[in-house]
Amino acid sequence: MARSKGDHEARRRDVSEAVWQVMAVRGFGGLTLRAVAARLGATTGLLTHYFPTKRALVAHALDLLEERTAARPRRPAGEGLDALRAALLDMLPLTEEATRSNRVWVSSWDHVLSDPELSEAHAGRYARSRDALRDKVAAAQALGELPPGDPERTAAGVQSFVLGLVVQALLDPAAFPPSRQIELLDGQLAALARRRPPGDSDR
Amino acid sequence: MARSKGDHEARRRDVSEAVWQVMAVRGFGGLTLRAVAARLGATTGLLTHYFPTKRALVAHALDLLEERTAARPRRPAGEGLDALRAALLDMLPLTEEATRSNRVWVSSWDHVLSDPELSEAHAGRYARSRDALRDKVAAAQALGELPPGDPERTAAGVQSFVLGLVVQALLDPAAFPPSRQIELLDGQLAALARRRPPGDSDR
Repeated sequence: MARSKGDHEARRRDVSEAVWQVMAVRGFGGLTLRAVAARLGATTGLLTHYFPTKRALVAHALDLLEERTAARPRRPAGEGLDALRAALLDMLPLTEEATRSNRVWVSSWDHVLSDPELSEAHAGRYARSRDALRDKVAAAQALGELPPGDPERTAAGVQSFVLGLVVQALLDPAAFPPSRQIELLDGQLAALARRRPPGDSDR
Repeated sequence: MARSKGDHEARRRDVSEAVWQVMAVRGFGGLTLRAVAARLGATTGLLTHYFPTKRALVAHALDLLEERTAARPRRPAGEGLDALRAALLDMLPLTEEATRSNRVWVSSWDHVLSDPELSEAHAGRYARSRDALRDKVAAAQALGELPPGDPERTAAGVQSFVLGLVVQALLDPAAFPPSRQIELLDGQLAALARRRPPGDSDR
């Protein structure tokens, strides 16, 4: 029986979902054709039709990670500093879904750093994210909510801050619950605006 | 011929050095008994004498990472904000050796996040590093170089900032050469001190 294009697309989606599930639980270190096949209830032979090599599987996993991150729900935001804050909150592991997705991002770094081509693709992903932050920083500056200065530098700074906070929160969720993550981010934004952080008092 | 304690110690050091070399090139993802044995010019059989399981090998690798990090040369520093800045610069991949060491730290996260016990040990390592930063923040506050406020929060913030900058610099060394890393760190410290970053001008 000939299979339709619709069948093919549906099967591709199933395969992608299985790749995602494996990554969310085991990270990139545990991403193997065998693990994806087991998740899918299929043979590794079938999987090699989609991914002839481990490298092809990893490349698909990275694309999937970028797609899922781009498609994630965003919190509503106003403009200027509020929009910047919302974009940064969207990156933090404040929900179960965001924790899973961040777990996969963090786990991708080890794999990517061993492969110059994958490293370059990853560098491009973070550069695009930084560009989006830069535009938000510039908008906040135009509104007078952030002091003037190089928006590229401020964007690189907040991106670093949030990436590092993601790592800390994943490694030590007890010390970095969502409330603490938000408090730290607001402290960072207050420092950039050069005002006293919310809830802070002289001692 | 009976082997002396000295021989045994020397062999342990050789094994540790081989573990380190494998990690520096391949990350934790590439850390296997076979790779360490090949590096050492020994059999995997000999290696199982030191590391009966993969988990024992990983645990040793993590201890080694902590030891090597603790023993690394530190830049001389004054007190207060200068000491804080020096400690943060020591964490950044500004030299080849620091890049290698950071590469191993970043690569450890994927592995550690799949293992609750290793995660807890890692959380403890970062908490101790944060405590040391907190004391430096408090000293800078006492000198009036940083505004008053919760030193724990400021320490968690600068730690996040530096960790994220490490990740960015490893993934995209062209965009984050040492001069850029230092510029970003100085911008962050200036924001915390609520003054204009060095070299910044109104536009």
